[in-house]
Amino acid sequence: MLSDLEIAQSAKIKNIKEIAGKLGIPESMLEPYGHYKAKLPLSLIDPEKINGKKLILVSAISPTPAGEGKTTVSIGLCEGLNQIGKKTTVVLREPSLGPVFGIKGGAAGGGYAQVVPMEDINLHFTGDFPAIEKANNLLAALIDNNIQNKNSTLGIDPRTVHWKRVMDMNDRALRHIIIGLGGTTSGVPRETGFDITAASEIMAILCLSENFDDLKKRMGNIFVGFTYDKKPVFARDLKAEGAMAALLKDAIKPNLVQTLEGNPAIIHGGPFANIAQGTNSVLATKMGLSLSDYVVTEAGFGFDLGAEKFLDIKCVSSGLKPGVAVLVATIRALKYHGGVKLDEIKKPNAQAVENGLENLEKHIENIRKFNICPVVAINKFADDTVEELEVVKNLCNKLGIRSAITTAHAEGGRGAVQLAEAVVEVLNECKSDFKPLYDWGWSVERKIETIAKQIYGANAIDYTAQAKDDLKKIESLNLDKLPVCIAKTQKSLSDNPKLLGRPENFIVTVREIEIAAGAGFVIPITGNIMRMPGLPEYPAAEKIDIDSEGRIKGLF
Amino acid sequence: MLSDLEIAQSAKIKNIKEIAGKLGIPESMLEPYGHYKAKLPLSLIDPEKINGKKLILVSAISPTPAGEGKTTVSIGLCEGLNQIGKKTTVVLREPSLGPVFGIKGGAAGGGYAQVVPMEDINLHFTGDFPAIEKANNLLAALIDNNIQNKNSTLGIDPRTVHWKRVMDMNDRALRHIIIGLGGTTSGVPRETGFDITAASEIMAILCLSENFDDLKKRMGNIFVGFTYDKKPVFARDLKAEGAMAALLKDAIKPNLVQTLEGNPAIIHGGPFANIAQGTNSVLATKMGLSLSDYVVTEAGFGFDLGAEKFLDIKCVSSGLKPGVAVLVATIRALKYHGGVKLDEIKKPNAQAVENGLENLEKHIENIRKFNICPVVAINKFADDTVEELEVVKNLCNKLGIRSAITTAHAEGGRGAVQLAEAVVEVLNECKSDFKPLYDWGWSVERKIETIAKQIYGANAIDYTAQAKDDLKKIESLNLDKLPVCIAKTQKSLSDNPKLLGRPENFIVTVREIEIAAGAGFVIPITGNIMRMPGLPEYPAAEKIDIDSEGRIKGLF
Repeated sequence: MLSDLEIAQSAKIKNIKEIAGKLGIPESMLEPYGHYKAKLPLSLIDPEKINGKKLILVSAISPTPAGEGKTTVSIGLCEGLNQIGKKTTVVLREPSLGPVFGIKGGAAGGGYAQVVPMEDINLHFTGDFPAIEKANNLLAALIDNNIQNKNSTLGIDPRTVHWKRVMDMNDRALRHIIIGLGGTTSGVPRETGFDITAASEIMAILCLSENFDDLKKRMGNIFVGFTYDKKPVFARDLKAEGAMAALLKDAIKPNLVQTLEGNPAIIHGGPFANIAQGTNSVLATKMGLSLSDYVVTEAGFGFDLGAEKFLDIKCVSSGLKPGVAVLVATIRALKYHGGVKLDEIKKPNAQAVENGLENLEKHIENIRKFNICPVVAINKFADDTVEELEVVKNLCNKLGIRSAITTAHAEGGRGAVQLAEAVVEVLNECKSDFKPLYDWGWSVERKIETIAKQIYGANAIDYTAQAKDDLKKIESLNLDKLPVCIAKTQKSLSDNPKLLGRPENFIVTVREIEIAAGAGFVIPITGNIMRMPGLPEYPAAEKIDIDSEGRIKGLF
Repeated sequence: MLSDLEIAQSAKIKNIKEIAGKLGIPESMLEPYGHYKAKLPLSLIDPEKINGKKLILVSAISPTPAGEGKTTVSIGLCEGLNQIGKKTTVVLREPSLGPVFGIKGGAAGGGYAQVVPMEDINLHFTGDFPAIEKANNLLAALIDNNIQNKNSTLGIDPRTVHWKRVMDMNDRALRHIIIGLGGTTSGVPRETGFDITAASEIMAILCLSENFDDLKKRMGNIFVGFTYDKKPVFARDLKAEGAMAALLKDAIKPNLVQTLEGNPAIIHGGPFANIAQGTNSVLATKMGLSLSDYVVTEAGFGFDLGAEKFLDIKCVSSGLKPGVAVLVATIRALKYHGGVKLDEIKKPNAQAVENGLENLEKHIENIRKFNICPVVAINKFADDTVEELEVVKNLCNKLGIRSAITTAHAEGGRGAVQLAEAVVEVLNECKSDFKPLYDWGWSVERKIETIAKQIYGANAIDYTAQAKDDLKKIESLNLDKLPVCIAKTQKSLSDNPKLLGRPENFIVTVREIEIAAGAGFVIPITGNIMRMPGLPEYPAAEKIDIDSEGRIKGLF
């Protein structure tokens, strides 16, 4: 069997001008990065053209180690829609470089449902992540420089600075560090750390910004900490926002690449789906809708995490309205939710699938709470049995919703035609009329409670003493009208990663609430959220190589 | 008066395809990055075509705060040569992003002798620095991961690891840090720090590599530290070189941009000129020579630093041979060397110029030691007097070498035609036959002594106890046949920054000797070398901005 990289490298890739041509982009407006990638100027976004276009949100059941293949299904669906004559662009997040060297390998779909050039997309791409990293770290340098220089100081209390540096690398040794050692000329010692770049607030900001002015305003709004006399300090107090935004002058522009079947793919931004909104940029989605009739996009992790944020934060902020939500499930993952251990997951077990359905069912209920029509996509693996697949189909029939099996991983667009047809039918027949779950104007507690009870299925919310203090701080800073971006484990609908299926009678504990005033949300933290992964004992990096001709090997 | 950025932004910039066309590059071989930048595939380098081409090395007298304008003269000379009908490409280093936010602003020439697009070149450019940063920091993460994981461990003694992380940011608080805090899952605590990216050994490696295989081999040769039982550890022992080289798959390709007058400029790599070789990549220089008849290139700081390394390291390693060395001087800088304080530098003072000439004279002597013909370029400022200029001319006449005044900053290529003519005459009349100063096969001490006595003018060399230990270590690792890349202050020919002019009767003290086995040299350290600058009290970042249309402001 060919690896993802081998499939990607053997693809007949088209010059990016050809892809742009399909979208009606004149060559003079294309900003090529080599022959197969390009940046798209923001002037191609046309609010007039977005009206009436179809936005398809791909989400999934609660992720399991067995995998769901959300990106693969999104890409496959784009191919399938194009195969049935619908002009479609898939709009995705950019993969993070760090995990490429860990366990994960590449993250640009898989099998015959990939975006290419796969190596480029996984390695630096068009430089957006490095630019975000730089903007983030410029603010950090300006903060420590202000603390260092007594004459220009704002009087920042170093102990209140929560702004961390970032690096797109799985580097656990940077999680907790002490900086500023080495005497009076080398800074003021303080505790801090590095997060991975995808976890940077700058990433969240870039992905919510509507234009340069909005970007700059959000940058200025970043909350940095307090002065010794307890006044809040924002990035604008350090006059940081202009230079930070200047660093993003190209990163703000969406990137155009192609699917294996030569259809347009816009890949832009990659915020985490736990501590951030977990989906590509507003500008990328609007670009896709300006340039084609259908846009397939995805939100990270399960529907409770990425999609809830996609809808309550991204859609409310930008005015976007999905016409359908595709919920991806696999038989393997349903068995896992049904109680089967990972090493038995490939054995036929229709009863376990049946047991796992409650997770799927809850996510479908959740989709309907936003007044959006659902479609279930069963991402089929070779060892799935007819009986097992029937179990899922029967549930969908019972619930009165469409489902389709997809085999895009093995067959490309041909394997997603059924799904594409189902999606088009639902778009034509079912009237989605998106409404958000909550009103941003509500109190922070009410917003948290609404999500936790209605989406997660919690009985009640508990706040630690720290979280209660944070609530007061947020009110005193007048930031309580921001939406909430709950950081929660993706592994469970609850805040306990061990509770699979459809947990009930649980309490969600809010440990603390962070402020992302620049991004424009607050982040109630309900568990240990990993912001800087580590490398495994035998890192994937050991296998990655390049030959004499500059061809990459071992990226799987 | 217009700022550099205003001049650059008002230039009529050509599509990069047009510039490539001038060089005979077919469009299919050009890898564009937007409309005004491109990467050039290594297959355009043709050793056959390099023979007989003219390489012009631009260097300078010992730098002073008054400035010399070496890059400006290099660009101006390229314009001037093209004006007199010589097909010329200027090949330069890439500016570092960090200093842009400090005092320095941009670094792509100045006035009417600039390379454009100036904002892009100064901000991220084509992503080479971020890629170098990533390769450097991947090795760091692999080292700490190996120390963390007991099963796969090489037994690295963390106290012997000298490999630092890098970031292209002026961030003094990262100079001395402790990492690996936070308990057993977050690494092993140890002291380390960050250097600025230009100081990374990866930068030096990239700029000396001849191709992908050479790059990978050099990466593998990086010396990391020792095991607890005193065995040396190299990057290859961590299986790091493949992934590190893969990260540089595009960064290894030289970048094509243009001068204000639409002539080709290749900008690639930017190693420091104190702890590294201080000049652009071998591949960029060879690319320039493959594509045009004349190549103007520069080496950092004064002739004693960048140019000595250009010749003894880069030229010996790559087989390049400069036909002429242009030594840039300014009347202001000569006055400074002649004892005038900085605030009096603009006042006419021919006697001070006369007094400062000894610095210029020593650098000319040094050029001749390499069997290369010198030309003196006087970079004229508005307040220079005829009498002052005559002083320099007279010295050059006395020494029997050509000199020319250039006003490229104010007038572009027109202001460098005289210099261009002088350079062409020297190339035609004077027979340079480059020979290196020393043989790599000599002992480390003999190599150091040769440079210090012959080039710096020292009486003797002193080694600290640390340096003596380092010499033993280098011999035991069989690395004593590598060339030496002496880290010394740029401000003086000696190792004491306060000794201006032509210091005599001084002793050079070697404090320690670092190993850069990947780059392929050892680094005798003769002073405090800044590897991570800080921001000033009022950083330039405060003035940098971007407008609604994405246009950069305040980059000066």
